[in-house]
Amino acid sequence: MGEFELIRRFFAAAPCAQGGEGVALGIGDDCALLDVPSGEHLAVSTDTLVAGVHFPDPCDPFLLGQRALAVSTSDLAAMGATPLAFTLSLTLPAADEAWLQAFARGLNHMAQACALRLVGGDTTRGPLSLGMTVFGRVPRGSALTRAGAQPGELLCVGGSLGDAAGALPLVLGERVAAASIAKPLLARYWSPQPQLELGLLLRGKASAALDISDGLLGDCGHIAKASQVALHIDRTRLPLSEALLSLGGRQAAEQCALSGGDDYRLAFTLPERHLADVQAHWPDVAVIGRVAIGEGVHLYDEQGGELSLPERGYQHFGPSRD
Amino acid sequence: MGEFELIRRFFAAAPCAQGGEGVALGIGDDCALLDVPSGEHLAVSTDTLVAGVHFPDPCDPFLLGQRALAVSTSDLAAMGATPLAFTLSLTLPAADEAWLQAFARGLNHMAQACALRLVGGDTTRGPLSLGMTVFGRVPRGSALTRAGAQPGELLCVGGSLGDAAGALPLVLGERVAAASIAKPLLARYWSPQPQLELGLLLRGKASAALDISDGLLGDCGHIAKASQVALHIDRTRLPLSEALLSLGGRQAAEQCALSGGDDYRLAFTLPERHLADVQAHWPDVAVIGRVAIGEGVHLYDEQGGELSLPERGYQHFGPSRD
Repeated sequence: MGEFELIRRFFAAAPCAQGGEGVALGIGDDCALLDVPSGEHLAVSTDTLVAGVHFPDPCDPFLLGQRALAVSTSDLAAMGATPLAFTLSLTLPAADEAWLQAFARGLNHMAQACALRLVGGDTTRGPLSLGMTVFGRVPRGSALTRAGAQPGELLCVGGSLGDAAGALPLVLGERVAAASIAKPLLARYWSPQPQLELGLLLRGKASAALDISDGLLGDCGHIAKASQVALHIDRTRLPLSEALLSLGGRQAAEQCALSGGDDYRLAFTLPERHLADVQAHWPDVAVIGRVAIGEGVHLYDEQGGELSLPERGYQHFGPSRD
Repeated sequence: MGEFELIRRFFAAAPCAQGGEGVALGIGDDCALLDVPSGEHLAVSTDTLVAGVHFPDPCDPFLLGQRALAVSTSDLAAMGATPLAFTLSLTLPAADEAWLQAFARGLNHMAQACALRLVGGDTTRGPLSLGMTVFGRVPRGSALTRAGAQPGELLCVGGSLGDAAGALPLVLGERVAAASIAKPLLARYWSPQPQLELGLLLRGKASAALDISDGLLGDCGHIAKASQVALHIDRTRLPLSEALLSLGGRQAAEQCALSGGDDYRLAFTLPERHLADVQAHWPDVAVIGRVAIGEGVHLYDEQGGELSLPERGYQHFGPSRD
């Protein structure tokens, strides 16, 4: 038996690979079989993370396992889907037992937290990269898409923005900060929490939603385009964490919040009548602007004057993926 | 807009990405939404193909696109599933327009032939590799798994074996052959035809099935293990193509058939009463042995004497993946 066959058995023995509700057949056959209740859609999303492009190489394998699954699961949250299962395609230069055990622990930790079962995948030799495909279920007609925002509605986000982008120089070892600042920011980079419960809460309330992965301005552009509306953002209302403000001051924090990537917070549009209910369940939800007639994303200052948009763009690790 | 964003739009515009039955929401949102009819399971399989490991690099991008999708779709055939959709994760060192157009044409060609719709994926910069996840649907209780073979049943395969393994030295340019030999063998390597219709025909008839990807002996070992039976293979009954026999004689052809990889034919166990019906619809189906009490895979010669098994193992391109 080859070493990679051993790795497959190793993952098949992980607690998150032991099946559960919705998994009719798990790892070990030509296909896995999933159950989707009558009246529901299956939601699917796939992501690839390449070493040196999407994460530093080397990095802590426990944190990598956790983060990789969280990034993909965030797409389920953005659709208002209930998590069901995932597959993992692991490409590795060699079979390093300590690395694999730590990676699997991180993966399993996030899988258990999100109620996701590992149902398949493969392991091949090659330059380190991770392919994740996540599955969820959502009642027909209830999925939160990017189209549907209506002029007059509120533009909201699920919590503080820019923390992961602020953490990036710390992740790369390009700068240091006091533990009280570094710790919460690094946690937001390495262990983003997919906002699954918020996604469920927003079913039937939010008119459009997505998760912020490439920066608020760019991602809001997707909602504006799909919904054929304009989004007006009030720069003074951006929710910024104490840690991010302490790291580099307000202007740098706003820049991270507007253009930084890897937030994995939900951004959504909401008829005003639902706001109190949503905030009662999720106090971190912040209103940052409005939906308007028009197109594109527009940024305003405290006096209501329109600001030119800072350069958009990804803030990826290492060489940009675009 | 970055070059890779352009690539994503390019794939989203492909004919196979235009939705269809079972696709409630295709490319362009956080998740795709699929419909699984009430009373059916969703079947899922995922594969990664790494350049220089699973295919030669460089190679013809049209053929690569075709082959990559066929390899994954073969797993749907092996479950008796009806094809529904697929996602593609493409990791590329650079955006080469001519390469991408040819790859997309090959992919689209196979997708149309298999009635598979492209519903998502991503494109990232990195060493060339392809991640495919395919989705199908199969009525509950009708999936063909590896467990279920019963002593006394026939062991069958869906057509000639060993052609792709025979083609490998031609693919690698290590040898040449007359066009009448090379052409059919290379076609079996680059354009394997997923046996989807055979898979559907075998629902309710075959007791166990899989697709032969890593060699007949190794893959039959999976059925034997999952079903807790022995499989007896009659070496004289291996279906061998004229081209393969012409390439290197009977002994070499048998070796390719037994241990070569990349066949993507179905191997299945069948109660004898179904044979005539199956062969009436699928004349290429060949009986190659029997299911027996015991364990493991056993090989017999024309006189019924047991032969020692040739060394099993993958026959991958380049460095072995295990």
